[in-house]
Amino acid sequence: MSEQLGGWKRTGMCEDFSSRDIGKKVTLMGWVDSRRNLGGLIFVWLRDRSGIIQLVFDENDQTGDFSGAESLRAEFVIAVKGEVVARTPENVNPDLHTGEIEVKVEELKILSKAETPPFEIEENSNVREELRLKYRYLDLRRPDMQKNFILRNRIAMTVRKYLDENGFMEIETPMLQKSTPEGARDYLVPSRIHKGAFYALPQSPQIFKQLLMVSGFDRYYQLAKCFRDEDLRADRQPEFTQIDMELSFVEVEDIIAINEGLIQRVFHDVMGIDIKTPLRRIPWQEAMERYGSDKPDTRFGMELMDISDIAKGCSFKVFSGAVENGGSVRCINAKKAGLSRKEIDALGEFVKTYGAKGLAWMNFKEEGMASPIAKFLTEEEIAAITERTGAQTGDLLLFVADRNKVVFDSLGALRLHLAHKLGLIDENRFDLLWVTEFPQFEYSEEEGRYVAMHHPFTAPMDEDIEYLETQPEKVRAKAYDIVLNGNEIGGGSIRIHNAELQERMFRALGFSKEEAWNRFGFMMEAFKYGTPPHGGLAYGLDRLVMLLGKCQSIRDVIAFPKVQNASDLMSEAPSQVDEKQLEELGIGLLPQQ
Amino acid sequence: MSEQLGGWKRTGMCEDFSSRDIGKKVTLMGWVDSRRNLGGLIFVWLRDRSGIIQLVFDENDQTGDFSGAESLRAEFVIAVKGEVVARTPENVNPDLHTGEIEVKVEELKILSKAETPPFEIEENSNVREELRLKYRYLDLRRPDMQKNFILRNRIAMTVRKYLDENGFMEIETPMLQKSTPEGARDYLVPSRIHKGAFYALPQSPQIFKQLLMVSGFDRYYQLAKCFRDEDLRADRQPEFTQIDMELSFVEVEDIIAINEGLIQRVFHDVMGIDIKTPLRRIPWQEAMERYGSDKPDTRFGMELMDISDIAKGCSFKVFSGAVENGGSVRCINAKKAGLSRKEIDALGEFVKTYGAKGLAWMNFKEEGMASPIAKFLTEEEIAAITERTGAQTGDLLLFVADRNKVVFDSLGALRLHLAHKLGLIDENRFDLLWVTEFPQFEYSEEEGRYVAMHHPFTAPMDEDIEYLETQPEKVRAKAYDIVLNGNEIGGGSIRIHNAELQERMFRALGFSKEEAWNRFGFMMEAFKYGTPPHGGLAYGLDRLVMLLGKCQSIRDVIAFPKVQNASDLMSEAPSQVDEKQLEELGIGLLPQQ
Repeated sequence: MSEQLGGWKRTGMCEDFSSRDIGKKVTLMGWVDSRRNLGGLIFVWLRDRSGIIQLVFDENDQTGDFSGAESLRAEFVIAVKGEVVARTPENVNPDLHTGEIEVKVEELKILSKAETPPFEIEENSNVREELRLKYRYLDLRRPDMQKNFILRNRIAMTVRKYLDENGFMEIETPMLQKSTPEGARDYLVPSRIHKGAFYALPQSPQIFKQLLMVSGFDRYYQLAKCFRDEDLRADRQPEFTQIDMELSFVEVEDIIAINEGLIQRVFHDVMGIDIKTPLRRIPWQEAMERYGSDKPDTRFGMELMDISDIAKGCSFKVFSGAVENGGSVRCINAKKAGLSRKEIDALGEFVKTYGAKGLAWMNFKEEGMASPIAKFLTEEEIAAITERTGAQTGDLLLFVADRNKVVFDSLGALRLHLAHKLGLIDENRFDLLWVTEFPQFEYSEEEGRYVAMHHPFTAPMDEDIEYLETQPEKVRAKAYDIVLNGNEIGGGSIRIHNAELQERMFRALGFSKEEAWNRFGFMMEAFKYGTPPHGGLAYGLDRLVMLLGKCQSIRDVIAFPKVQNASDLMSEAPSQVDEKQLEELGIGLLPQQ
Repeated sequence: MSEQLGGWKRTGMCEDFSSRDIGKKVTLMGWVDSRRNLGGLIFVWLRDRSGIIQLVFDENDQTGDFSGAESLRAEFVIAVKGEVVARTPENVNPDLHTGEIEVKVEELKILSKAETPPFEIEENSNVREELRLKYRYLDLRRPDMQKNFILRNRIAMTVRKYLDENGFMEIETPMLQKSTPEGARDYLVPSRIHKGAFYALPQSPQIFKQLLMVSGFDRYYQLAKCFRDEDLRADRQPEFTQIDMELSFVEVEDIIAINEGLIQRVFHDVMGIDIKTPLRRIPWQEAMERYGSDKPDTRFGMELMDISDIAKGCSFKVFSGAVENGGSVRCINAKKAGLSRKEIDALGEFVKTYGAKGLAWMNFKEEGMASPIAKFLTEEEIAAITERTGAQTGDLLLFVADRNKVVFDSLGALRLHLAHKLGLIDENRFDLLWVTEFPQFEYSEEEGRYVAMHHPFTAPMDEDIEYLETQPEKVRAKAYDIVLNGNEIGGGSIRIHNAELQERMFRALGFSKEEAWNRFGFMMEAFKYGTPPHGGLAYGLDRLVMLLGKCQSIRDVIAFPKVQNASDLMSEAPSQVDEKQLEELGIGLLPQQ
């Protein structure tokens, strides 16, 4: 068959060659990126993972058989033998890494012909994503997509090497686990042997990694597949990958130190960037008060300011009422934003999506302060606000008065929104920090009880344990997140390593003893036989790669992603299966409603 | 709380210390392996992942607070500060790596108390496996289990480094795939969003890795989780891990060369053993004829011998009939086995489990040849058999006459059985070889058609393509297995990279065009747009670790394995789930029959 290699061996990839190789005989293989004919010569750009090199076929050359060269079209797969030659100075192409040379072809094999692809294989393509995902194998040929996966591989390997050098062992935890409903929705897998019973795909290896510490493995890591059956948002996938680690005989400081080393190594080896450590640390409460976010983007200022004490006694009921009800009045200053009244009104609509009832403002114009709320405030109150915020001409104060959660959420989001709108963010900066001392609990209106902010195995701070039963809202956890440019890229905690404290924690979360034992009994049992102090951290690998690669979507760093409705447009999964398969599993389909 | 580290930092693990460290102040943490009191001194063996070191508490020492030392029991987790001191010569313990030293404790913290574990934490424990698996976290504390996972991690990391250095990129393929029933039974995952539709967990990343080659990634690898819902045998698990790789622009030779390098590297770096390459290669047909197995153990001889031509015309109908029906008569020679009549009869029972109807034999005793079949053979026939087999006094020829498959299976198994029984195998040898030129098809009695011996994407050998439709049994594949000590540790093939040939292959397998497109349409579509020649290989990581670690069971190299009925005895998965969870998925349980 003409499409076989027939013993030809590639001497290198396209961009392995440069002017140092002039005169060398080479064998190259790859895809035809483009072809053009020019006065008896055929020029072909040959493409592979490394990049592009130019081939030249001289039809007047008696020694070569180029009968096939004329038939070459984009995306044909070919192999050529030839000689590396210099380009004449006027033909040097500075846009190609191999632009100083070309390969004069002596022999050609067509390994695979190609139909015209549904879209062109080119960088920064504008093809709609649906078509890209249906023909994902072609989409992945695009040089920018190839770069994303080269980056992903480089990051993963660097992480592995660093952790390996630091005494971590990779240990695989099971994919077919017990369903322990708490947190997100499980993907279930029906058991054929135990009809009526189900496995769950792991939401994280949390319990197993803690058991590995009980087993004395000391330092564990895994690049672990995790699953959550949730409705997808733009940056969520039903399956995702965690860089997961757990360490024994450590406290918060130790985990932070190890991970600062890891981050430093990844930035150095993969990005060529030196990160200074120790990274900044911001306690959760401070992060909320200054940035309205537990994952603050600190590449710009525009911090939140609290005027609750000033607003408390004012006659503007929206302000004073918020404070009286235990909430607060806070503002940010959009300096020199020069926003129109219409634009300010749009910001009011924006904050409503975060639960705020409205946005009050004070615009410090040349001609004086303009504000729809000025009439409700005394001169002293306005002066106090001006002094507190340091507002000057050109400033625009934007206020939200509400429960603290709403104030933080809406001003935090507004701060980010304005920073993008006003171009305040240096997109070339990588801004890393830790958020620490998270609350142990948050109150779930939906469930009418306190739920774990991280998870029920997170250790409370020693000095707060006494409040577990009496003032759970006061309890801070030994938990920490690492934040890159306003995105949480990882998080973790010191775990409870004491069976009694773990039982108290389950009680505080409203589990009956029976419920707790039913779900986590084997874990509490394990804790009885000598458990080391331990803790860990998990990074979202997909998101980390997306941020380092400056990609727009998480789908650009996952080879075969699912779309919003959790389906794969290429293979058309999920799909109907044979009735017989379901019967074997002892399950049937409920009638559709 | 007294159970916190309180800022103590470990200065090293137990076996990091030796007589070079005498006089050093150290902080150690780990599990109490044992404690004994001796004349005012308390000796504690402290254990961690690295091993054991001896601690000494001197109760008469006024400077230390050892109030807790007396309470220490096995499996307590402790931290100590102290000084490394030399043992007196008579107290040196040559069985411990740290036997020349001990640590004189100055301070003690009890980090976690322990109840008496259900079994002792010791090497080579005889605890029944059910109990070990229920308390897996304790079982994994045993030093021999810890060694297995240290080995597993070392193998995995060595593989990754080698493949990374050789231009392979790790790319993750999806876990939630389309169900393509062919081969083993899929694990299904019901979709909540697309009610009535299901994902399947991958049996292997086969299709996706081929698509990655279509995408131009050139060299891919992954340590991939794979799933098969089959009834478990001793060495099978519902989920297992493959070292999976795929390469573009390669032929069989290239893949073998890369993988011989990989094997060499693993044996060198992990085991300290130098493997000579190239490894032996045995075509499948030869492996069957000489060893009765496609995964021959060649650490010993006892090869099969064919006497069909002699047996063909004999009056012993069992022999002549087998040959007439297209089968054969073959034998092995159990030299110097000295088996009793009863033992030989037991071998007859043994081969029946492989489908043989019986075992004929000729025993060349001092006093002459004894054989129950001698009476059916002429003197010339006996002489011819004796000459063909080179049988001498002390030899025992064991014959099977049947269809070739039965002859090979039963004599292949008998050969191994006898080698173990007679102690012919050097257990310290690692014997590696390739089996090549596998048949493309095997006839499935159950399905009444030819099925793919490897899988339907395997390329046929060029010279055999012409027989695809006419004589499928003659077609050999570009497929190869790598065999270690009679175990298949990996296998792969060159793939079809041409859409038309792939369609012919599906036809030869009895798929209608519609069926083929319904299952693999996206793959055949992909092949239209320029597909490089490619091929790959996958190793069973679990089995590889088991063999290199000389473990008895695959469960000893999987941290949290399932038992025969696919359940996890520790977490009790699979389990019942809430009715609500099933409703959300649109499925219900069928009434139990």
